[in-house]
Parts: sequence; structure tokens; C-alpha cells
Amino acid sequence: MVRIAPSLLAADFLNLASEVDSVEKAGADILHIDVMDGLFVPNIAMGSNVVSALREHTSSELDVHLMIENPERYVADFCKAGADMLSVHVEATTHLHRTIQLIKSHQVKAGVVLNPATPASMLNYVIDDVDFVLVMTVNPGFGGQSFILKMLDKIKAVRRLIEASGREIDIEVDGGINAKTLPLCREAGATLFVAGSAIFNEQDRELAINRLKGI
Amino acid sequence: MVRIAPSLLAADFLNLASEVDSVEKAGADILHIDVMDGLFVPNIAMGSNVVSALREHTSSELDVHLMIENPERYVADFCKAGADMLSVHVEATTHLHRTIQLIKSHQVKAGVVLNPATPASMLNYVIDDVDFVLVMTVNPGFGGQSFILKMLDKIKAVRRLIEASGREIDIEVDGGINAKTLPLCREAGATLFVAGSAIFNEQDRELAINRLKGI
Amino acid sequence: MVRIAPSLLAADFLNLASEVDSVEKAGADILHIDVMDGLFVPNIAMGSNVVSALREHTSSELDVHLMIENPERYVADFCKAGADMLSVHVEATTHLHRTIQLIKSHQVKAGVVLNPATPASMLNYVIDDVDFVLVMTVNPGFGGQSFILKMLDKIKAVRRLIEASGREIDIEVDGGINAKTLPLCREAGATLFVAGSAIFNEQDRELAINRLKGI
Amino acid sequence: MVRIAPSLLAADFLNLASEVDSVEKAGADILHIDVMDGLFVPNIAMGSNVVSALREHTSSELDVHLMIENPERYVADFCKAGADMLSVHVEATTHLHRTIQLIKSHQVKAGVVLNPATPASMLNYVIDDVDFVLVMTVNPGFGGQSFILKMLDKIKAVRRLIEASGREIDIEVDGGINAKTLPLCREAGATLFVAGSAIFNEQDRELAINRLKGI
Amino acid sequence: MVRIAPSLLAADFLNLASEVDSVEKAGADILHIDVMDGLFVPNIAMGSNVVSALREHTSSELDVHLMIENPERYVADFCKAGADMLSVHVEATTHLHRTIQLIKSHQVKAGVVLNPATPASMLNYVIDDVDFVLVMTVNPGFGGQSFILKMLDKIKAVRRLIEASGREIDIEVDGGINAKTLPLCREAGATLFVAGSAIFNEQDRELAINRLKGI
Amino acid sequence: MVRIAPSLLAADFLNLASEVDSVEKAGADILHIDVMDGLFVPNIAMGSNVVSALREHTSSELDVHLMIENPERYVADFCKAGADMLSVHVEATTHLHRTIQLIKSHQVKAGVVLNPATPASMLNYVIDDVDFVLVMTVNPGFGGQSFILKMLDKIKAVRRLIEASGREIDIEVDGGINAKTLPLCREAGATLFVAGSAIFNEQDRELAINRLKGI
Repeated sequence: MVRIAPSLLAADFLNLASEVDSVEKAGADILHIDVMDGLFVPNIAMGSNVVSALREHTSSELDVHLMIENPERYVADFCKAGADMLSVHVEATTHLHRTIQLIKSHQVKAGVVLNPATPASMLNYVIDDVDFVLVMTVNPGFGGQSFILKMLDKIKAVRRLIEASGREIDIEVDGGINAKTLPLCREAGATLFVAGSAIFNEQDRELAINRLKGI
Repeated sequence: MVRIAPSLLAADFLNLASEVDSVEKAGADILHIDVMDGLFVPNIAMGSNVVSALREHTSSELDVHLMIENPERYVADFCKAGADMLSVHVEATTHLHRTIQLIKSHQVKAGVVLNPATPASMLNYVIDDVDFVLVMTVNPGFGGQSFILKMLDKIKAVRRLIEASGREIDIEVDGGINAKTLPLCREAGATLFVAGSAIFNEQDRELAINRLKGI
Repeated sequence: MVRIAPSLLAADFLNLASEVDSVEKAGADILHIDVMDGLFVPNIAMGSNVVSALREHTSSELDVHLMIENPERYVADFCKAGADMLSVHVEATTHLHRTIQLIKSHQVKAGVVLNPATPASMLNYVIDDVDFVLVMTVNPGFGGQSFILKMLDKIKAVRRLIEASGREIDIEVDGGINAKTLPLCREAGATLFVAGSAIFNEQDRELAINRLKGI
Repeated sequence: MVRIAPSLLAADFLNLASEVDSVEKAGADILHIDVMDGLFVPNIAMGSNVVSALREHTSSELDVHLMIENPERYVADFCKAGADMLSVHVEATTHLHRTIQLIKSHQVKAGVVLNPATPASMLNYVIDDVDFVLVMTVNPGFGGQSFILKMLDKIKAVRRLIEASGREIDIEVDGGINAKTLPLCREAGATLFVAGSAIFNEQDRELAINRLKGI
Repeated sequence: MVRIAPSLLAADFLNLASEVDSVEKAGADILHIDVMDGLFVPNIAMGSNVVSALREHTSSELDVHLMIENPERYVADFCKAGADMLSVHVEATTHLHRTIQLIKSHQVKAGVVLNPATPASMLNYVIDDVDFVLVMTVNPGFGGQSFILKMLDKIKAVRRLIEASGREIDIEVDGGINAKTLPLCREAGATLFVAGSAIFNEQDRELAINRLKGI
Repeated sequence: MVRIAPSLLAADFLNLASEVDSVEKAGADILHIDVMDGLFVPNIAMGSNVVSALREHTSSELDVHLMIENPERYVADFCKAGADMLSVHVEATTHLHRTIQLIKSHQVKAGVVLNPATPASMLNYVIDDVDFVLVMTVNPGFGGQSFILKMLDKIKAVRRLIEASGREIDIEVDGGINAKTLPLCREAGATLFVAGSAIFNEQDRELAINRLKGI
């Protein structure tokens, strides 16, 4: 099954409520929210206030991606704000195992994110603990990039790790996902797909999501 | 004259367009936007994307308050995004004079902000260069605080500095501003007033703004 | 009145219980505990665990001096561990006013500390809020230094600030305090005196404390 | 052979001398000292002063674990203070190879520590240089955690690396070690065991250590 | 073929023009320039100004090695100054893939550098993008070190990665390179050799370079 | 008396020896060396290696200006390299008093530097200890700036502090110094003048220096 998570980073910031309504009606499975601190990535965007407001507005699953340094500082805030899924970067914390436990202690699904250059082997000792893995298919926080084909190898490597662990967990991909790249990622083992402009820039969003889902 | 700048931090994040329309119609003079990096202050909020979107939506003056470390890194981004006023914290940069020039080189009004504990004397050698001074009347980025009365002394001290410099520039105040505290700040020398809940939490926002303006 | 706070940094670390008993019996008024993070100062020493253990052992007032960066991160820990007085450096935090309120919210006396080079004017807008001021009379965290005479001017300047504020609060001094330097500090306006080797290196600690007290 | 290193973090801080005497008499082979800077880990504890005092008090081997950022800054201090073994985290320094040489230049045994999430492969190019490897079996510096079973795989992986290198060096384990978990670690390849509460919280410490040693 | 890059760090700083002329005449293929920020490595040396001056003076290929934290901040400066090859450390940036693209966007050859302790596997997902790999054979920025033999294994591992990628790119080595160690590196797969004292400390530099080249 | 310190930042980096000879012959009193770490200022330039080389080449007084964060880390290096004067920024260290003592312990003249925005009052408690004060008349490390007239007020304020202290020490100025601005600074109280392009960009450097000296 292909599940689609529209990234609100590509939505109209001044009308998030109607943007959310629109993609939910169009068949979105999950809402993806990018949090940026201007330090881990060269942009600042969306804090826990936005997550709280979304939580009150919708019952969709909220998937929060922390592109911030030392994310353990903000795990409690985002969990309390209403995140259902919360992911942190392998590159951003020296206490990755502990941070995963912290997220899970809030009854929130814990994910780890890999930057394009980061090897899958960095997950060897946490793969049994995480609820999902997010493989970045572009560099987070930078604009104007295209899908990095080499990441298909990484998706496969993560899939092998997951299979070895014996649990069924999601591989999420984010960056340059469209009707062309999605099937490649899916074939490599991805199951959850973040899409931004491929949905929000389209006139008919239902059509756009259906196309992504291969319907 | 009393000018009022509603702080969008207190607005409904999911419907910023209509919130902006509402306060503009109610008599707002300027829109105040708080940018937070989760490092200088313990919250993350609003990046240049929101400023860009606002710029397209409205012709109101956009007053952007950078609560971020080393703000010089992001001055160009926010100026290009459409800020009309841009302020940086005295405590956040070691090159305050240079950062002010950088803002002005973009034809944007440059402001400096003082945390509650910071003395007015830190402005001695930049007062001739800035276009406005923002005196924080609560601690930036922390919730649930009330107006700090001692800041009235600081407003007066900044007013004296301004008078000595021979130029007419604004003193803006931010934090706990309501119909009770505004006149105290005004009497001390403030001319521009940021208000959040005192406007956005009110049913009749026109009445709320008029009350603040003393009409 | 002269009150003496023996600094446990000069005590025998392997026998703190008996060291504490000894100085209490000898007339110590308060116990002074230096916390160092190896970053704000070039040494690491004593965390909240030691404060907890002391709290269980004695009913003496515990005066905890945080020589650490961004002390707001650890205020709650040390308050819960049992500190009665907690002081933070002006140079270590950009949210000094907020940190003072945080300490006080735990019903603990809040102090601010000034490094030798830091002007007294940095206290202008917090003097009404603090419960005590600690004037460093040597550089914190560095060994082998002697009392800095120039600090007598600073003690006087802080005393004037306190008088202007209309409240009665302590000026504590720390560094090179002995029977010779204490009277100079006292005359300048100090009321609470931290002493290390002048007490712990003496055979007869009662005599040592009495000498400091001028008895 | 099973060697036991009681962790002084679990000892009575106010009576370290007698605590040390007690565990030495009970059969401790080595004394383990945790140094924390409040930055690499969220606690502050024990600096080189404590190591110096211990050095004068006992001839037991002192095993110092630096849970601090950029440990190279403090290697000389702890070596001079009397450490016999000194370990640094792979995650805390960008110059791991150099830091190992620095420790060895002081004639002190050099160890590297792996956080739970860190792969054993990070040791590939230093395994020939280190005198021991410390595998964390809980997250360092956080309380209330239980032994992480997955770490048995890592102990085995490190054992394989050691065997490939052709030298005989210790694998030390730290965190949640008790009579139940020790044999698992031993079987996986560990040879040196840090234990805290499993020794210090027991009435009969000789019995406790014997039990750990399997006697 | 053996290509030699004299490191200007070993040249006479007060007469760089004639030093450059001398090694070019002696057969140097490339000029190697070490940039140090005193943070990533414990020394400060050579900024983009030196690169600009060299660019005007010579048409030799300029190979700039950034031993600095977050090198992405300075990529544009050094490219504009005239670098032909620019390398950044795997350990210094969390956006390695992005930084490589940034260098290449300036039409400059992009390299990645591995500290002695860093595994070759850190290159798995960037090996298809880089133009060369620099294997440090001593610790960068520290003086008085000798060639680390273990690095021969790493050169071989990198060579295998390159072969698997199907492209022909250079492996550069830096540190302790002389007539004895160069052939070992060459045999392991290195193709570009940085040498400092082995060239600049020699009276007859042509002889020195020829000896290195095995002529 | 007017003393002139040519800034080597404006010299030909590839021929420093002859540049130094040239300005010495032209009447330079002191050589000024700017050290930049790319962090405190947005450029990297000249480390202790250059100072060592200059020390061997000339007996002129070497005046080293550290534009680096936490300069205490490098004080020993630059003193050993041969600096005669060493200055650190008020904004760059939290232990200014201690850093001054450290410089003086090496028998080197200690200076403090003030960025354009920094008030003279920051010197209140170190003015008795320093050997000279450097007032920046442009922002350090940024190019293309012109002399900041407001700094004349600061020079006067520093002069008053010096007079109150009863000692005779230099006020050095750096940035935009030429035959027009020098007399203004001199009148305000400056005694030592750093000049870059006003000397090195001139054909006849003796004439240039004489003009600056008012001869």
C-alpha cells in the first residue's frame, strides 16, 4: 500500500486550515510537518504552536520531522502539542538511543532520519527500537534540489536492516517525490511518501494524490 | 500618536490571512512577526516563508523581530522576503553595529532589541544608526509572564538617549501590553505598541484596538 | 554582622560529611558549593548529586554558585536538590531576568554573580529582583590567584545600586578572602564572605572563623 | 577472569574515603569514576580534584570515564591527577585518533566509549591503538534506565574487531550490570564490569561483588 | 603516475611567491593550501586572501583543504578566490552531500577528507559525487606526528569503494609523506601526494620531488 | 607623538618579508597583525606561524590583534611565537580580566579591543590592568567600510577612563585611518594608529607614513 503525507511546507502558510482540509479530502493519509531551527538547516519554520493548532483542527495523523540540533530539547513540547509521529536526525544528537526512548515514553511513534550522506549502518543498534525510518532523498532545508537517485540504494539497505530485525516498520521518503520517483522508492522498499509541490502546486489535488498512489 | 502592531504569535496560525485582514480592518498600523530559533529563545516559530506570504497578501508594514542567535546570518533572507522593519537583539550578536548597517543596506528599517536585564547604555554607540528601539517588557520567547514595571525606567533611559542624539525615532514595546500598561509606556516615551492577546483574544478587535489607542 | 560561608571546594572531597560537621561546629553560617562545567570555567566540579547528599546531611543553608553556561538548564535540578541560595553569572545567560524569576519560582533565593571585568551597571534592571549579589574577587574557576583590590570599587558601586533600590540584600564576596581582605570588603559594603583555604587549611577552624568574623 | 569496577557515582558522596575502603576490602579490582560536564550528558559530576584526592588515598587502579564534550581539553588534567585508565567518547571528539595518542603520551591506558546507538565500526581504525573499549549498556548520564539487551551484539562485534587486531584488550561494560546481566556480557566477550547500585546499595558488599564475580 | 602537491604550510611564509616559483620549477604538479580555523584544528592558518594572491601569481592548480567547522560557510569565498580543488572534512559538516554539490556548482573539484579515526564507510553515499578523496595519514592540524601505517588499510578500502562506483577519481594522502611512505600509499591505491617538509626542508627541491616521484 | 602600525592585512601576502622591510624603512613604528578565525569575524587569516616567521625576520615590535572567539585558548601560542603586544576583544571572552593577566604573565603587553557598538564602560574594571586599548573605528573582519565618526566619542570616553586611572597607556585605533581621519582620532586622544591601504596601496610609502605622522 502507498500512503501519502503532504508536506505543509509547500502549502499556503496563510490558509493552513483550508489547505489541510483540501488535502485530507483529496486522500492524504498523514500530514507531514517540517520543523527547522535555522541551525541544523538554513531555514526557520514551524514550531510546536503550529502542531497544537493542527491537532485541534484535524484528527489526521501528524508526522513531525525535527530538522533541529539536539532535538531532545524539544521532544516533550512536540509530543504534548499533538504529534503522532516524531522523527529526529541521526546527525543531530549524540544520544540517539535515548532520544528514541524519550519519544516513545510519550506514546508517540519514534522515527530516525538519515541525511543523504549518512550510511544506513548508523541504524544498526537502534533499528529494533524505532517505529519508522525517514530516508531523505534531497538535502533537508535547502531549496531547489532534485531527487538523489543514489538514495534508492540506501532505501534497500534500510529495508534489509528492517527485515533482519524481524519487525514491520515504515520507510518514509522525503524530497523530490513525484509520480516518477515514487515508484522507484516503493520498489526499493519505501512505504510512506512525503510530497510537497507535487500535491500543493497542482490544481486538482485528488488527481495528484491518486496519481502518486498509482490509482 | 499611538500606533498598534498586533503580534501574529497570538493569531490563529491556521488562518493567518483572515486574521491579518481582521486586524487591519480593526485599525492595526503595523503587523508584528516574531521569529524564534529555539536557541536564543526556547521556542521555534515563523521563518522567512511566512514573511514572504504576508508580503504578497498585504501592503501593511511588516515588523519582523528576530529572536535568534547571530541574526546576521538571516538578515538578507528576511529583507528579501519583504520585511519593512527588522530588529535584532543586542544580546545575540557581537557585531551589532555591522548588523544594523547590513539591514539598512537592504533599505529596511533597522531596530535593536533589549532583553529585560540589558542596560540602555548598550545602545550608546548605535543610537545614531538605528531606526527604532524595541524594549522588551517581558522576557522574549517565554509564555505566561506579566509586564515588568521596571522597564518603564528603561524606556525613559532610551528616550533620553534618543533626545541626546537629536533624531526622532520610535521606541517600540512588546510584552504584556494592554489598556492598563500601554499608557504607562507611552508616558515613559514609547510610541509603537505590540499587542497579542489583548487584540486577538477579544471578540471585537476594533474596540480592542481603539481602547489601546485611547480612542 | 559578618557571616561566613566556607567553600567546600577547599574541603577534603573524600570526607565531606566530617568536613561539613567540622565547619558547622566552628561557626560557619552557610555552606558554599561551587558547580563547574568545564566550559564556563576551566574545571569540572560538583553537581546536584552533591547538593542532594548535603541536604540530607545538614540543615545549614546551602549556597550554590553555578559557574556554568546557560545555567537556566540546571536551575530546577539544583533547586530540587535542596539549594537555599542559587546564583548565576551575568556573563553566562542571555535571559538573566527570566532565570532569576525561575529560581524564585522554586522558593529559592536568587543571586547574580559578576566576573571581575563585568561592570556593576549590568545589574541596573535586575537589582530589584535579586536576593543577593555575588561579586567575584578573583576569576572563577582558575587557581592560584590573589584578591583583586579593584573589586572594592565594584562592591561600593553595587552597594549604591542596592541603596537606590530601597531593599536590604546581601553582597557576597568570593575569592582570596582572609583576615586581611575581609575587613576591606566589609567596609566597602559586603555582608557575606566565602572563604576556602582560610578555613579548611587551618588546624583550628573555630579560631579561623572567629578571626574572619573579627571576634 | 571477571574484574569488577565499582562506580563511585553510586557511592555516598559525603564519605568517599570510607566507601572506597569498603569496596576495596570487598574485592573491587578497579575504581570507576564518571566525569560529567552537563553538556555531553545532562548532569554535572566529579572533576580532576576528586581524582587527585583518590590518588592520594588509594593505590587501586583509577578508571576515569570522561562524559564530556571535546575531552582532549581535559586529558592532561586527569592524567596528571592520577588516572590509570582514561576513556573518551567516540561521539564527543572529531580527533579520536589524536586524543588516544595524547592519553598514551601520559603513560595512561587509553579507552574509547561507544554510546548505545553508535556502531562498532566506528572503531575500525583505532582498535590497534586503544588499550580498552567501553561499551555503554545504558545511555550515559541519564538515570533510571535498564540494561539494553541489543548491546550484547555490539560486545560481540567489538570482540571480533579485537580478535582481528591480534591484541588482547579489555571490553568494559557500564550500565545496568548485575548478577543477571553480567554473565550475558561476559559470554559476549566483556571482561571488565562497572557496577554501581548492585554494589553500593547492598548491605554486604563482599557478597555482592562475589556474586557478580560468580564466586 | 605519481603527482606531488607541496604543502605551503611547510614553506617560508614571508616569501611565498619565491617558494611557489621554486617548487613549480622543481616539478610540483599542484599547490596544496591548508586552511585552519583554530576550532576544527588547534591552529589558525591561511584564509581566502592567500588563495586570491596565489591565483594571481600562478597558473598551477590550487588544492585547498578546509580544516574548518561547517565549511559550507566558506565554500563560495574559496571558490571565488581561485581554488581548483576544494576539500571538506566528513567530521566537520552535517550536510556533506549538499556541501559537495555546492563546491561543484562553482565548477571546482570537490573532495572529502577523512580523519585517521573515521571509517571509509562514511563515504558510501557520496563516493559517486566527489572528485577526489583525501585520506589523512596524520591527524590534521597537530604537529610532530609520524605517518599512521593503519591508514594503508583505509586507502585500500577507499580504492575498493571507488572501483565499485565505476569512476576514476584521485585518492590524495596528506601527512608524513616521504620517499619511504609514498610507495606504500601508492601501492595501496593513492595517486596524489601532499608533501611538506620532505620538499621545503630539502636544499635541492627538484631532487626531492624526483625522489618522491620515484624518478 | 604619532606612532604608525602598518596592518599586514593590506600587504602582499606572497612577499611579506619585502613588504615588512619596505614599511620599516619608510618609518613604521610597529607591525600590526590581524588574526581571524572565521567565527568571531567572517574571514580566516594569519596564525601564530606567521608571527614566528616575522619574529625571526625583524626586531620591530609585533602587535597582534586576536579577532577570535575565546582568545584565551591561543594566548600562549602567540606569546611564544613572539608577539610584543597582544589584544583580545571584550566581546569574545567571559574571562576578560583573567585573559589580560595571562597575556601579562608572558611578559607581553596586554590590550583590549572594543567593537564599534561596545560601550567604553565595559573597561571600567580592567582599565588599571591593560597596557593599551584598541578602539575599532570600523567593524573588524568586514571589508569595504568607512571610518565611523561616532567612535571619536568613544576614544574620548576611553581617554577619560585612562586619565582617571592615573596611568599613561596607549589608545590604538584601527579602521579607515588615513591622513584625514588620523588627526580627528589624535585630537580625541588616540596615540597609536593602524593603517592598511593608506600605506600599502601607496607608491611612496615613506611619504605616506610621513603624511600620516603629519610630517
